[in-house]
Amino acid sequence: MRPLVTLTTDFGLQDAYVAAMKGVMLSIEPTLRLVDITHLVAPQDVMEAAFLLSQAVPHFPAGTVHLSVVDPGVGTARRPLAARLGDQLFVGPDNGVLALLLEDEDPDALVVLDQPTYWRIPTPSATFHGRDIFGPVAAHLASGRRLDEVGTPTDTYQQLHWALPLADDEGIQGWVVHIDRYGNCITNIPRTLLERDPRSRQAKYYVGAVILDRLSHTYADVPSGEPLALIGSSHHLEVSVNEGHAATLLSIHKGSPVNLVYGDD
Amino acid sequence: MRPLVTLTTDFGLQDAYVAAMKGVMLSIEPTLRLVDITHLVAPQDVMEAAFLLSQAVPHFPAGTVHLSVVDPGVGTARRPLAARLGDQLFVGPDNGVLALLLEDEDPDALVVLDQPTYWRIPTPSATFHGRDIFGPVAAHLASGRRLDEVGTPTDTYQQLHWALPLADDEGIQGWVVHIDRYGNCITNIPRTLLERDPRSRQAKYYVGAVILDRLSHTYADVPSGEPLALIGSSHHLEVSVNEGHAATLLSIHKGSPVNLVYGDD
Amino acid sequence: MRPLVTLTTDFGLQDAYVAAMKGVMLSIEPTLRLVDITHLVAPQDVMEAAFLLSQAVPHFPAGTVHLSVVDPGVGTARRPLAARLGDQLFVGPDNGVLALLLEDEDPDALVVLDQPTYWRIPTPSATFHGRDIFGPVAAHLASGRRLDEVGTPTDTYQQLHWALPLADDEGIQGWVVHIDRYGNCITNIPRTLLERDPRSRQAKYYVGAVILDRLSHTYADVPSGEPLALIGSSHHLEVSVNEGHAATLLSIHKGSPVNLVYGDD
Repeated sequence: MRPLVTLTTDFGLQDAYVAAMKGVMLSIEPTLRLVDITHLVAPQDVMEAAFLLSQAVPHFPAGTVHLSVVDPGVGTARRPLAARLGDQLFVGPDNGVLALLLEDEDPDALVVLDQPTYWRIPTPSATFHGRDIFGPVAAHLASGRRLDEVGTPTDTYQQLHWALPLADDEGIQGWVVHIDRYGNCITNIPRTLLERDPRSRQAKYYVGAVILDRLSHTYADVPSGEPLALIGSSHHLEVSVNEGHAATLLSIHKGSPVNLVYGDD
Repeated sequence: MRPLVTLTTDFGLQDAYVAAMKGVMLSIEPTLRLVDITHLVAPQDVMEAAFLLSQAVPHFPAGTVHLSVVDPGVGTARRPLAARLGDQLFVGPDNGVLALLLEDEDPDALVVLDQPTYWRIPTPSATFHGRDIFGPVAAHLASGRRLDEVGTPTDTYQQLHWALPLADDEGIQGWVVHIDRYGNCITNIPRTLLERDPRSRQAKYYVGAVILDRLSHTYADVPSGEPLALIGSSHHLEVSVNEGHAATLLSIHKGSPVNLVYGDD
Repeated sequence: MRPLVTLTTDFGLQDAYVAAMKGVMLSIEPTLRLVDITHLVAPQDVMEAAFLLSQAVPHFPAGTVHLSVVDPGVGTARRPLAARLGDQLFVGPDNGVLALLLEDEDPDALVVLDQPTYWRIPTPSATFHGRDIFGPVAAHLASGRRLDEVGTPTDTYQQLHWALPLADDEGIQGWVVHIDRYGNCITNIPRTLLERDPRSRQAKYYVGAVILDRLSHTYADVPSGEPLALIGSSHHLEVSVNEGHAATLLSIHKGSPVNLVYGDD
């Protein structure tokens, strides 16, 4: 067994929070292999955390535990959860990330973490559940504990209806959830929604300072320096500039609206 | 044996310095497990390094070696040290970090690193003792060498009297040593000093643009957006804003003074 | 066997690209040990990638695989390569990094990666060869595959003549390829070129806002706050300020020219 745990947080890299959590986890299971996804999620931005997780998760081996701690509700009554989706495990606060990862599916198993035996201490700090609950439970799961040992089954989890794009017969409205290092602007509009209506290919895309009149297949569909809309490696609509920094060039920010309007055909 | 070494430096993340040091360490002991605490300590800021280390160290398993290379004195006569504090080992320059970690205690063992056998090369570079002395010695200690093999016992180490807060019968004067990603302002005033005088609970706290009139227990003691002083997970006085970025909102910087004045009761 | 792979990319740290690549690699070879060199290479800056790699590579154990993905030509006809240089292996796009690492030598073995068996999928994405080709091949090489299994021998690789300094009987012209966290300015002028003409020691060095009139041996050759030119731990000409941030103080940027003019002796 080679237990693998990924970590996605908004803890940043200039503090000792990530290391404290890793120390606790390695004290529980010394053979853990830890892979950082990112610790630079914008503070408390659960949509960005969900998007980044969804990009990485498909590439990890069966049995990987994905620890995600972006926790605007720490210290409130929001529940700590663990879930199994296919052959991957997830641990984190009930903040909506799970719903965004699942899209319309259901988790294969879902538990509320209510067994302090698997926490660092029975009375966790009010501000650092990553170190005191989520990290320890992830380490125990990676070392072979079952979901029904670390928690009690539940059926409910936080939905994030506001985070989903709106779609009707005239088009789709979504927004930019992440801007990557190259300036590509990734939206909350999934491939599945775009492919539901063939008019998407020739629709008008209003975003930032530009109106695009088609969905491109690859960067090379447009000349260098020109903007385009395409379905990226994230399986979501992305707005990019061929060999350029789209966010800067097109005045797009995180949260910028993206409006897709079907033409008259 | 699963040798574990943590790394705390001011080397940054855009250079190859950390990787060069890790390469040397893995050449010595291929089974090493390396955990970064942070490499973003402000350049040459030994107080920040000590604070971040003190947050992480209690969470690591017995036998962990903590390598700390913030080294304003590299190339001068400052001595290279290794120490044992309880069941943890420390390696780094004699720059005061050790004194700050120990507070008023003594190390359980302390040696000057004077055995070039355990260095990368007998004549280390003038500018990179992390790669040439401290990293290699940490790897050797993690792989089972004893302190008295890698160095010679000593009793003295750099004190940092200026780094300690001043306390008298009227109050305490300290300052902000670290601002975390969420804007919380951590000071050099330890819990022990605050608890020595019960008047701390009702004192006036002067810091940045605000005067606080009590020591709070948790964030929830004040409404959202309001400032508070509390003893944080670091066991030091912290100044925060509930659901806000204290450093920005209260005009607090690293180095900002914090004055605690006892009232007339 | 303890397979070790280093990673050098321009992917940044706020995205999931590095983690996706690591997930693919760990799915191929679960015992891999991964060491980040840096993911903060300036986007598409192959010279900086080559410089950073050249600093780290000499310190890694024999058999280490160095994965370098800075890939301005992704999606074009540039070839994917793997090479052996002494006891180290390299994997990456044919973008000139290899030529810069080799200086005037030849690789001990060089192959074009044309065996999709060792890729993630036979038809890789147009934009993410790190995840789909280079990462998987690096994992296979680290797990024991031979170069002639993953590719077909070739003799040619991209040269970067423009990236080399110009030298004639009157002096040397180069430029700054990297500025480190402390503000030291590292140039593309190697030690070997400087040592070829003894007049280098007393030449005039024109760089940014300053003219230096000698090559120093160590920082301590000049008073605190004064600029100097020296051969750094990178074995290249560096311009620094003793206890200061040279780039800021001397108005030096990445790409700033450095002119060395021999005197009349």
